[in-house]
Amino acid sequence: MAVKPHECLLVEIFAAHVREQRLALGLSQEQLAERAGVHRTYVGMLERGEKNVTIYNIERIADALGVEPAALLERNCGSTHG
Amino acid sequence: MAVKPHECLLVEIFAAHVREQRLALGLSQEQLAERAGVHRTYVGMLERGEKNVTIYNIERIADALGVEPAALLERNCGSTHG
Repeated sequence: MAVKPHECLLVEIFAAHVREQRLALGLSQEQLAERAGVHRTYVGMLERGEKNVTIYNIERIADALGVEPAALLERNCGSTHG
Repeated sequence: MAVKPHECLLVEIFAAHVREQRLALGLSQEQLAERAGVHRTYVGMLERGEKNVTIYNIERIADALGVEPAALLERNCGSTHG
């Protein structure tokens, strides 16, 4: 039973954190993509929660933003769902 | 240039956290796999750092362990490498 990425809450949380951190640095999606060494459209898809991102790319994006990977997965919604 | 998962530090950190939490709960790899709804050999591969795990499965494993996903990615090695 394949679950589409956007149905996974953590994808949305990660997307929001990436966008927030990117904007705080004043970077465009293309600039962040270049820093992280990913395709320039990847960041847009990621920020729309369309990517079931891998741990490898979580690390690349976090390093490009200069934050800890764990910070991008902080769930502030309290209860573990499901 | 495909980078093998084990070359990505975060994969190893995640692997160590999952193993530590699993053992703390007294679960076998098969029991954790069953809780998380993944194949019974998946947890073994994951704990050996052989899996470029996706955010979807990070969430499933974290929920199965009853911990926050961010806790499984805490890098205690200080500096962001690279």
